Amino acid sequence: MKKPGSILETILYATDLNAAHRFYRDVMLLEPLGDGPSGLCAGFRIGTGHVLLVFNPEVSGQAGRDVPSHGRTGPGHVAFRVEPDELDAWAEHLESVGVGVEQRVEWDGERGRSVYCRDPAGNSVELIDADIWPKA
Amino acid sequence: MKKPGSILETILYATDLNAAHRFYRDVMLLEPLGDGPSGLCAGFRIGTGHVLLVFNPEVSGQAGRDVPSHGRTGPGHVAFRVEPDELDAWAEHLESVGVGVEQRVEWDGERGRSVYCRDPAGNSVELIDADIWPKA
Repeated sequence: MKKPGSILETILYATDLNAAHRFYRDVMLLEPLGDGPSGLCAGFRIGTGHVLLVFNPEVSGQAGRDVPSHGRTGPGHVAFRVEPDELDAWAEHLESVGVGVEQRVEWDGERGRSVYCRDPAGNSVELIDADIWPKA
Repeated sequence: MKKPGSILETILYATDLNAAHRFYRDVMLLEPLGDGPSGLCAGFRIGTGHVLLVFNPEVSGQAGRDVPSHGRTGPGHVAFRVEPDELDAWAEHLESVGVGVEQRVEWDGERGRSVYCRDPAGNSVELIDADIWPKA
């Protein structure tokens, strides 16, 4: 039995899924799954074999669903990988659309850089230009 | 400016990071980052360019950190991709180590199957043997 090869679903939560849909489609430039958010979930494809699902915790947290319940309150976090030569353009883009940059971080000198913002639900969204984590 | 190419960091939350570390290392068979959990975070590498970070929300949610604060309460969710011919072995493994299978789901006939369990913090952990989401 091999360890899992990848994560298929990364989850965030937002009670206003229309606002989340607009943010991840129009600001983060992600590709929506299907026609738009259901009452339960707004989904986005991130390359091959990986999706971001934003759930309304007031719905996904209800007991008696067809699948196990889950749903958190409070701000979550996700980090998207972007190209190093595009990180400054991302920061300008966030400012130009009125989202704003919450913080910039330079990781140990030249190892990588991050730009942080908030989605409409208050989740901390990071754009990072390198894999800064230990490789083995 | 291209859309983000991938997600670098997928996040869950748990107040007992030692229990989370043992679960994701020993039950989920993930590769820990570094020597083990800090007071803040237990991390695991998922293939190339992707990590799972389990944060203690009581620490990550504090104001005045070096990076933006975040931290949720309540059960979250993540789905790991496993091989189709190993899903039944995963279910047996979960039972044999005392975690237990919360639910099995068959997605639209032959399209894919899932096995669900809970991590020690109550997060809903799914093992799924196919990418069941729309491709475009």
